[in-house]
Amino acid sequence: MELRAKGLPVPTGSPFTEEIFELLERALKLRRRFLNACDPTFVTDVVSPLFTDLYQLTMLAGYLRHGLHEQEATFDLYIRRAPFEGGYAVWAGLETALSMLESWRFEDVHLAYLRGLGLFDETFLAYLRDWRFRATVTTFPEGRVVFPNEPLLTVTGALGEGQLVETALLNVLNFQTLVATKASRAVLTAANGERAGSVVEFGARRAQGPDGADSATRAAFVGGATGTSNVEAGMAFGIPVVGTHAHAWVEAFASELDAFRAYAAAFPNDCTLLIDTFDTLASGLPNAIRVGLEMKARGQRLRGVRLDSGDLAYLSRKCREALDAAGLADVRVVASNDLDEFVIDSVIREGGRVDVFGVGTRLVTGGGPGGGALGGVYKLVDLAGTPKMKLTADRAKSTVPGRKRVLRVRRDGRALLDVVALEGEDVRPSQLVTDPQNPLNRTRIPSNVEVEDARQVVMRDGQRTHDREELAVLRDRAANDLANLPEGTTRLLNPHVYRVGLSEKLQDLRSRKIAELEASLHS
Amino acid sequence: MELRAKGLPVPTGSPFTEEIFELLERALKLRRRFLNACDPTFVTDVVSPLFTDLYQLTMLAGYLRHGLHEQEATFDLYIRRAPFEGGYAVWAGLETALSMLESWRFEDVHLAYLRGLGLFDETFLAYLRDWRFRATVTTFPEGRVVFPNEPLLTVTGALGEGQLVETALLNVLNFQTLVATKASRAVLTAANGERAGSVVEFGARRAQGPDGADSATRAAFVGGATGTSNVEAGMAFGIPVVGTHAHAWVEAFASELDAFRAYAAAFPNDCTLLIDTFDTLASGLPNAIRVGLEMKARGQRLRGVRLDSGDLAYLSRKCREALDAAGLADVRVVASNDLDEFVIDSVIREGGRVDVFGVGTRLVTGGGPGGGALGGVYKLVDLAGTPKMKLTADRAKSTVPGRKRVLRVRRDGRALLDVVALEGEDVRPSQLVTDPQNPLNRTRIPSNVEVEDARQVVMRDGQRTHDREELAVLRDRAANDLANLPEGTTRLLNPHVYRVGLSEKLQDLRSRKIAELEASLHS
Repeated sequence: MELRAKGLPVPTGSPFTEEIFELLERALKLRRRFLNACDPTFVTDVVSPLFTDLYQLTMLAGYLRHGLHEQEATFDLYIRRAPFEGGYAVWAGLETALSMLESWRFEDVHLAYLRGLGLFDETFLAYLRDWRFRATVTTFPEGRVVFPNEPLLTVTGALGEGQLVETALLNVLNFQTLVATKASRAVLTAANGERAGSVVEFGARRAQGPDGADSATRAAFVGGATGTSNVEAGMAFGIPVVGTHAHAWVEAFASELDAFRAYAAAFPNDCTLLIDTFDTLASGLPNAIRVGLEMKARGQRLRGVRLDSGDLAYLSRKCREALDAAGLADVRVVASNDLDEFVIDSVIREGGRVDVFGVGTRLVTGGGPGGGALGGVYKLVDLAGTPKMKLTADRAKSTVPGRKRVLRVRRDGRALLDVVALEGEDVRPSQLVTDPQNPLNRTRIPSNVEVEDARQVVMRDGQRTHDREELAVLRDRAANDLANLPEGTTRLLNPHVYRVGLSEKLQDLRSRKIAELEASLHS
Repeated sequence: MELRAKGLPVPTGSPFTEEIFELLERALKLRRRFLNACDPTFVTDVVSPLFTDLYQLTMLAGYLRHGLHEQEATFDLYIRRAPFEGGYAVWAGLETALSMLESWRFEDVHLAYLRGLGLFDETFLAYLRDWRFRATVTTFPEGRVVFPNEPLLTVTGALGEGQLVETALLNVLNFQTLVATKASRAVLTAANGERAGSVVEFGARRAQGPDGADSATRAAFVGGATGTSNVEAGMAFGIPVVGTHAHAWVEAFASELDAFRAYAAAFPNDCTLLIDTFDTLASGLPNAIRVGLEMKARGQRLRGVRLDSGDLAYLSRKCREALDAAGLADVRVVASNDLDEFVIDSVIREGGRVDVFGVGTRLVTGGGPGGGALGGVYKLVDLAGTPKMKLTADRAKSTVPGRKRVLRVRRDGRALLDVVALEGEDVRPSQLVTDPQNPLNRTRIPSNVEVEDARQVVMRDGQRTHDREELAVLRDRAANDLANLPEGTTRLLNPHVYRVGLSEKLQDLRSRKIAELEASLHS
């Protein structure tokens, strides 16, 4: 049977029978899954170059028609506010985004679909067939702590290439940065307790779609979570997987004690017991202690007890006391149930004795005040050597025009402020820099500092310039950066505002452009 | 060159050379993308059976070890509260979920990963190799309007099968139901205006990952959105794609007027102009009108103008007046910029004249009060014929035990209340039903009503019992249901609470189980 008969897009005259085809399909499916196991960016596997807003394609067709598509354009991606009303963001999603840019090709099936929309001519479709991302990407390393109003990522290349990737870049980087930042807030808070608690991610069931879960797991790990319950993401990204059991397990046995004993028998080396199925203190805890002592007598160790409801501060204290009194000091207390950084903070302040916080929904959806989505934007700042800006009624929100560099100013390894300057502009101590949102606020770069380029070229002419980094490297970078910020920058509420300043030349350029645009409006 | 040398899991002795392998890989990639184009559930393509919380696997291994895995178990999936503090939910994601259940297989690579965790023995891995989802799924048809505290979906089958699918079912159904409901709220609100506005989905760049975007587009369409800017989702699900241009387009030309003329020349049949790049009323609107009149003179039609900032009520009125005065009454006003149902409501109340609302972030992330995630849960309610329940300190939150049916009570086609009864139990007018959260609240099923089974078996022993439904059918079902609810049920704030009642027999069973569990606790 010919494959064409099945309506599959196999070239006419293909010698492959259906049987071989299916055999290979199976092999390839395995291969894909195998690659997934090694590939930190497997979620991009289904992201096609059609993952874009229609207007990117119509604009691109228009640029082509008017001969503008090859003009060299520079786009800056930035955020205007830190998420969660906080003072920083953890930059995440870059590896995912770069893999996507490398792999995008318009296949026949995409072109056929676009043709069917009736919007595009054959010249444009032929252009898309040859389209590759050949631009240059300059950005902060993934895992770095970054701030509002500085260009986090810059794409320089043909207008048609920079324009088309906007939607997908924003999608991936907005989401992973949101979640990595959320994770870091929970992780820093949990570590403050007497028990120096850690955070594991438990959110798959409430995440926004399967890769909403998987890429959230990845980002949470970059932000400092130590493990996940999501096995697929654990496999894909090499992240430790953790888990206990559910209430259903307890209900499947004649009694809670039977259920605990059965679980301990099945998992003597990794047994954490959920103790709130019936009554935490009256039933779950004493049963768990009994099983813990039985395990101890067998030379095994009960790893933990998990609380999933009730007053976690009170219950965790009671658990700790009872476990310690029973000689089970090495049994950890795990707590879950609608946690986030604020609840963790409250549990700790009220004397909770939690070792591991299982954080779900609000972590993987980046929920809470100032959360839900990161408002990253992607703006044209230069076209064919002419700085461009988008004026807004509130001038403070106008874009910052021009091709830029970003410098991080440190003293003794600690970050002090970031300076956004013009490309090639020299930046030195004692120079004045200006608040991007209000030129009344100016500050002088202090002396005795190191000034370093904060960003690097990660892709030149569409080719990566570095090897892919291990997830653990990104995670360490984030942890190190978070430990070296000005005091108060990571505070949950009303944080210290880390300074980002525009260089004098950049500030001058922006003022000139505003004046120019205003003049043209009223001419 | 042998493929094994590349570390790929191809059987030893495979006769396929790398060249053939790569050729076929390309063909299969095309095939997959081709299928995507026809397949409303393509996002499941990367969802493996490892997309589950680790504890599902450890419990399953434990059940197997203790010989419990084949016991017949029934799990109910339900929500405790309607999202967005509203009065209903639009049931969505079912087709996606069923495709996933059908396709799940543990491949060698998954088993190898699980083996590497050191938690599981070979008996369990052999069981997983043969694992198929062979259970029976009973649920509301997709698109149906549903309510808290009734079983939305029930899985009946071997304990090991029902348990393993919990995480993925919740992920897909929670998210799509959240977004479909959010969309319906915006759509119903937009339709209230003088212009009977419609809603299009513009959220890809702020969605939670690529399939967070694509599956949100699908769900938004089920909930009543008329189109999307997301081309990939448009192709995958056959949803109309819509778009205009961005500010960058305007900045790429010497003047706004040039940019508008260029766009009109490129897209004479689908030209919507973004008019807020410099100044909406002073520049964008007059330039758009000029181009609209030029198009009219050429026998073409300017399709719309788009507002993306500022006071949308005021600006849309001004646009409408100016367009009408210029003889461009058929040019539509499109508005976007952080919209949701509440902003749309306010724009309409203040006399806004918007034809199309482009809703982004808050739609695709299901944001806003009571949003961000749907708290659907999945609970064991029967095991081997014994009703099961999870007691909670707040008894109102305890599960409802037993195998159930759900009946929808209608009068003249309008839904009045839903009754949850025991499987096989007869339900008739004039019977008493009890509020699941408070037995003090009881009501009598009115007379002169039709009582119909609200759910159906959609998968029996792992096989679908119906053909896949077209997305348009689901969408029509939702629209029809929304139009036939008790007055006030769709109100944005403080809605009428649609009644869901437990039958007398079910209420008796639940009371008995509570008493039984309480007694065992204090014995």
